[in-house]
Amino acid sequence: MRVVVPYAAAEPKTRLADALSPAERSAFADEMLADVLAAIRATGREPELLATEPVETDAPVTVDRRPLTEAVNAVLAETDGPVAVVMADLALATPDALARLFDAEGEVLLAPGRGGGTNALVARADDFRVDYHGSSYLDHRRAARAVGADATVVDSHRLATDVDEREDLAEVLIHGGSAPEYPEADANPDPRRTSRARSWLRRAGFDLADDEGRTTVERESGFAPRS
Amino acid sequence: MRVVVPYAAAEPKTRLADALSPAERSAFADEMLADVLAAIRATGREPELLATEPVETDAPVTVDRRPLTEAVNAVLAETDGPVAVVMADLALATPDALARLFDAEGEVLLAPGRGGGTNALVARADDFRVDYHGSSYLDHRRAARAVGADATVVDSHRLATDVDEREDLAEVLIHGGSAPEYPEADANPDPRRTSRARSWLRRAGFDLADDEGRTTVERESGFAPRS
Repeated sequence: MRVVVPYAAAEPKTRLADALSPAERSAFADEMLADVLAAIRATGREPELLATEPVETDAPVTVDRRPLTEAVNAVLAETDGPVAVVMADLALATPDALARLFDAEGEVLLAPGRGGGTNALVARADDFRVDYHGSSYLDHRRAARAVGADATVVDSHRLATDVDEREDLAEVLIHGGSAPEYPEADANPDPRRTSRARSWLRRAGFDLADDEGRTTVERESGFAPRS
Repeated sequence: MRVVVPYAAAEPKTRLADALSPAERSAFADEMLADVLAAIRATGREPELLATEPVETDAPVTVDRRPLTEAVNAVLAETDGPVAVVMADLALATPDALARLFDAEGEVLLAPGRGGGTNALVARADDFRVDYHGSSYLDHRRAARAVGADATVVDSHRLATDVDEREDLAEVLIHGGSAPEYPEADANPDPRRTSRARSWLRRAGFDLADDEGRTTVERESGFAPRS
């Protein structure tokens, strides 16, 4: 099975503009990508990047400057056999969570993201195509039925958590990897995987802040990890 | 195993004040509670309420006016044998998701909520006590270790989604139950369970709205379901 990780290399994570500078957003996105690639490898599979421009990484890279939907559908069209598509900002992804997706039975497997997105999927039906605009999760369920498949849904908080906004950073600090200061924060410690995204946030001065409702983040001033 | 559902009957869901009137919040909370009780029953277990004041329901009710932590710890102290605690606002909870929690192995099982909370747990260790203040998920991992247990974490988007804020309503519309207008919205259709919370939101005029990032909700004016 091909495991494709789309990556928008230019100006990533714009919705984190209230928390990180452009250079920081780019560096943080790189760390999340590295975590996702490591988690995929720990399942025994070899990830490949589908990037909007050339990037330096230790995985094979295909450059496709088209929008996400078109680029992914080109991969689906050219591939005989199953394809997995895993978003690059799933900083909480563990090998266990990904294996639940990769190994589930069904022609189309979907891991919904919070807010109606599709954070990861496996397409074993040849004719299945993606559409990432809008509430893609519901659209992908319809698309699966359209090719005679019933989508199987993988219920995972780790895979549902794409890191797009400031409040998502709290999830990375709580659940991301096994950084030494919070060894309790990893349900599935895996020596092959340390959370680079979480460590980066800590170096950048972020810590958990107990707010009125959900736990959020605060940033100590004066920290600026090199980008 | 006792399955306890804490329920703050007076002025519930205050963080939904930007979306619903006080009477509507109370009615919506009742619908979510009914869904949670039905999902628990569909796992073959009998839920009981732990309420801050008397409520009319078809489940046994214990009234304890103390704060959540103290009330739950009183239950844990008085009970020989395992206790499950499931929050009343898990409007996405399915029998499958709850069964994954109830049936997991371990002395302490935790289903983290988004933002560091603990949305559901099972305590099989006699001495385990809860503390729902702040980032309770990390605290409960420490509390488990303090009684010689390693917490087992159940990775579920459905159980991680407590419905507290306006944006959470989109999750209910996308994933909650099998209302006829979105039959594709339920991964695990179960004739014993229809999503009352989702149906209530639809009757109240809410629908999905594609925003820039995550899907949110919009409300048609002129709708006012009876509270």
